[in-house]
Amino acid sequence: MEKGQLLYEGKAKRLYATDEQGILWVEYKDSATAFNGEKKADIAGKGTLNNKITSLLFEKLKEAGIESHFVKQLSDQEQLVREVSIIPIEVVVRNIVAGSMAKRLGIEEGTQLERPVVEFYYKDDVLGDPIITEDHIQLLGLAAPQEVQELREKALKVNEVLIGFFKEVGVDLVDFKIEFGRDKDGSILLADEISPDTCRLWDSETKQKLDKDVFRRDLGNLTDAYGLILAKLGGQHS
Amino acid sequence: MEKGQLLYEGKAKRLYATDEQGILWVEYKDSATAFNGEKKADIAGKGTLNNKITSLLFEKLKEAGIESHFVKQLSDQEQLVREVSIIPIEVVVRNIVAGSMAKRLGIEEGTQLERPVVEFYYKDDVLGDPIITEDHIQLLGLAAPQEVQELREKALKVNEVLIGFFKEVGVDLVDFKIEFGRDKDGSILLADEISPDTCRLWDSETKQKLDKDVFRRDLGNLTDAYGLILAKLGGQHS
Repeated sequence: MEKGQLLYEGKAKRLYATDEQGILWVEYKDSATAFNGEKKADIAGKGTLNNKITSLLFEKLKEAGIESHFVKQLSDQEQLVREVSIIPIEVVVRNIVAGSMAKRLGIEEGTQLERPVVEFYYKDDVLGDPIITEDHIQLLGLAAPQEVQELREKALKVNEVLIGFFKEVGVDLVDFKIEFGRDKDGSILLADEISPDTCRLWDSETKQKLDKDVFRRDLGNLTDAYGLILAKLGGQHS
Repeated sequence: MEKGQLLYEGKAKRLYATDEQGILWVEYKDSATAFNGEKKADIAGKGTLNNKITSLLFEKLKEAGIESHFVKQLSDQEQLVREVSIIPIEVVVRNIVAGSMAKRLGIEEGTQLERPVVEFYYKDDVLGDPIITEDHIQLLGLAAPQEVQELREKALKVNEVLIGFFKEVGVDLVDFKIEFGRDKDGSILLADEISPDTCRLWDSETKQKLDKDVFRRDLGNLTDAYGLILAKLGGQHS
């Protein structure tokens, strides 16, 4: 497999073509960003940690029957994925109130939700990724009504499975953001990444934050936190 | 009927008890506020205009089969209403993109929507009335799922009827905000007011704004605009 031209560079990853039709080469960057890019830093080792954690979680999800775009890990910072057209909706699932939800709705951070809450955000940096309703999704033509239903159901299934993985290793899955894409047949596939950049993960005992809030809120060393997650999940930190 | 003690003072109205069980006395104030109270002014005649327009619209809605809390107009600035417990959800219906929707979703103001969009906002000044989804409504315990469905259906019915009234007099109903309450039996009743404070109303020909945007955006004389709406609807400006 040959790495081809750079197709896209995001805040956390670079996406390259390959010589195989429908397969892309992903490189995880060592950059950390928060607050829609307003806070930035280069953190050596972060790309490796997120690549390894994402690879591991996508593999575990596959074992649990949830397909994703993930094909295989190539190296510390690289993985192969199936090419999909990303649906510009960030699907957020919340089990415990934190972050923007706590602020927006005036509910104390740490409040356990009776059932998971699914939220949709319009993936648009210029607009600051605003929260949207199903009416807005239709209006913006982002996904058909039955696709929205599928996103919701898939996100709740991912949540159920991830809660289990993390619980076994003493970590509370507070919330997470996932993205989906459409493959060439129009089927919806879990895509992007699942890492401490995109999940809130709290130590079940101490409630220590082991996710990007360490960076957002200056709570300590990000790679220590992410490394702990990787180790808990059984991964090898190089 | 005797006016009793002041029960509640909001930004635009005062609510008093009466000597009749279940009936309240509303006084429309001459104050204009916008941007969650950040912009304020006293505008002589505004209370009268909104009281008259609201009375007239609630009467017209009743004729069209839509009940509200409205009982009768008492004087220029006063009306009697049935007592309800307000559901803290602002229900917004949009026919044309304007205001916060244009900004949030990056759609040009004036874009005609293919079908009306219904939005729910959590009525909470401290939080700045954030937009909420049905999941949030359940989480916050604001209304039961079947009540949310009822709010949506009633709001769309109100929209259909109001579009017709305004169209007849050469005015486009761009969007509006309504509130609902529960009566003592728990039935949901249209409440609050319907006026140029709570609707966006554009002259169908000239697209001149005849609503609170005149105040929000300093576009001219507010009472001229509101007076024009009252006159178009067949009301008498004192």
